Amino acid sequence: MHEFDIIKKYFSKLSLNNKNSLSLNDDVFFDKSNKLVISVDTYVDKSHFFNFENPDLIIKKILRSSISDLICKGVKPKYYFISGSGNKKTFKKSNLKKISQALKQEQKKFGIHISGGDTVFSNKLSFTIISIGFSSNIVFRNKAKFNDDIYVTGSLGDSYMGLQILKKKLFLKKDLKKYFLKKYYLPELHSSLTKKLFNFANTSIDISDGLFADLDKLINRQKLSYKIFISNIPISKNLKKIILLKKLKKVNFVSKGDDYQILFTASKKKSRIIKRTFNSLGIKISKIGNISSGAQKSQIIDEKGNKIAIKNRGHFHSF
Amino acid sequence: MHEFDIIKKYFSKLSLNNKNSLSLNDDVFFDKSNKLVISVDTYVDKSHFFNFENPDLIIKKILRSSISDLICKGVKPKYYFISGSGNKKTFKKSNLKKISQALKQEQKKFGIHISGGDTVFSNKLSFTIISIGFSSNIVFRNKAKFNDDIYVTGSLGDSYMGLQILKKKLFLKKDLKKYFLKKYYLPELHSSLTKKLFNFANTSIDISDGLFADLDKLINRQKLSYKIFISNIPISKNLKKIILLKKLKKVNFVSKGDDYQILFTASKKKSRIIKRTFNSLGIKISKIGNISSGAQKSQIIDEKGNKIAIKNRGHFHSF
Repeated sequence: MHEFDIIKKYFSKLSLNNKNSLSLNDDVFFDKSNKLVISVDTYVDKSHFFNFENPDLIIKKILRSSISDLICKGVKPKYYFISGSGNKKTFKKSNLKKISQALKQEQKKFGIHISGGDTVFSNKLSFTIISIGFSSNIVFRNKAKFNDDIYVTGSLGDSYMGLQILKKKLFLKKDLKKYFLKKYYLPELHSSLTKKLFNFANTSIDISDGLFADLDKLINRQKLSYKIFISNIPISKNLKKIILLKKLKKVNFVSKGDDYQILFTASKKKSRIIKRTFNSLGIKISKIGNISSGAQKSQIIDEKGNKIAIKNRGHFHSF
Repeated sequence: MHEFDIIKKYFSKLSLNNKNSLSLNDDVFFDKSNKLVISVDTYVDKSHFFNFENPDLIIKKILRSSISDLICKGVKPKYYFISGSGNKKTFKKSNLKKISQALKQEQKKFGIHISGGDTVFSNKLSFTIISIGFSSNIVFRNKAKFNDDIYVTGSLGDSYMGLQILKKKLFLKKDLKKYFLKKYYLPELHSSLTKKLFNFANTSIDISDGLFADLDKLINRQKLSYKIFISNIPISKNLKKIILLKKLKKVNFVSKGDDYQILFTASKKKSRIIKRTFNSLGIKISKIGNISSGAQKSQIIDEKGNKIAIKNRGHFHSF
């Protein structure tokens, strides 16, 4: 059973009297009257991260994944809590030192503050991170409009390539290896964009599960569909190079998740202000498709103009 | 290494610029300017709870443990988040139904609302619960005053007796077994007391780790000590009966934790208003000792008037 199904079937009805929970169908909790925005995520070893030999990098990755939920909604993160479950080995002194140092660096980089947490003993390593921000508004899910353009920031797929290297499924030269591993461990978040999203985005989400999976989630309560052109999906020069060199398929890299880029839709009228905004911030932006009516199914169009089916639409945590 | 030591050594320094985190030395996070109070706790199978054959009872127990952190600080809980890690077996349909039903009952009983959460796959069962309330003030730790009386609500030790039964270390008749198991699974929280604490309590904490462990924590940054009289520690009639019957020692039951009673100190001048308040609320209250100077060590006085040493001061989660 998908985690989405579990939440939908057993817990959504509990939140009927609490409109702030967005019926448990958004990435954040938003209490407008208290201007409170909260994201809660649990990260489990082997499922959400690998190789705790680099605890500093893992901690940075999952902390960024958590605050990304706020940033993509137009909210500046302010506080975070971290609750770790692990054993003597994972929480040995040298690891704790590295984790502490990593958190210190992230605090400075993103202007966030540790606010509490918990450490408990478990042979299974996991972390729950809670990120908190204050805002009188957020960019919601399920607010796409018919004919909206679909945009994505940055490049997709680099993180997944990093994961393949980490899992030793692919071997690259040292500099390329370093490039992709960095993309895997240290997603670049677009903090400078945060408040500006309200100027043009109708709806938004960050890409954690995979482009198509997150597009599905973005409009899951709307009678709309999307049309995406594979050729318009932005990938890095390095990824392009490897795909050519190893005769891989672009489509197999762009919806694997862990990108933490921002996916949003906007009216066509906003295209000029979007261009201007991203130019001035120095952030790459790509128009990858548009929102269509719900009368048709969502379409993914390959480089030759053919409709294609994607089997694995992204990463789900299945039970 | 104790979790307290880990937090102290590696994470406290990260919170130096964030006075709201109370230097990670309180049970809650309090942001006065946003009137925000948060408690985060992780509960791990075999360490914090046993016997997931009763998922409804386990969920009630840990949810109450979480909101207890707010209630003991004078804050009414409003929202909660629950993040569960488990496998197909622990999250099978019948369990999810029970959990959902249990949460619904707790929501009604305590006026709280589910606000989000997460479910992830793990062979190790654990839950992280976040409880949130709004208040312009809290009863802090480390605000005891010299000569304060020390009070505790309700009775101590019943929950620990329940745990002994659950672990099959003790066998009792059906009705007594039922009584103690209920005390273990369903701690009674004193919601009605919440706001009234500000009228008399200088400092407070809920008893989760054990009376003496929590007393130690309550004044851990103050140059004070405490003097507790075992004979004044309140225990239930049923516990008294079993202790007599089985020739057990009271002292071995009163500081084992999981009581979720409120421990607070108050000026002697407040004794009348305390009596009146608890009478009108119908909550049992006991004066169990007093705060002494830091020049002497904390003292525990047995029924014969002798100073005694307690080896196991409570339940710690050691690494």
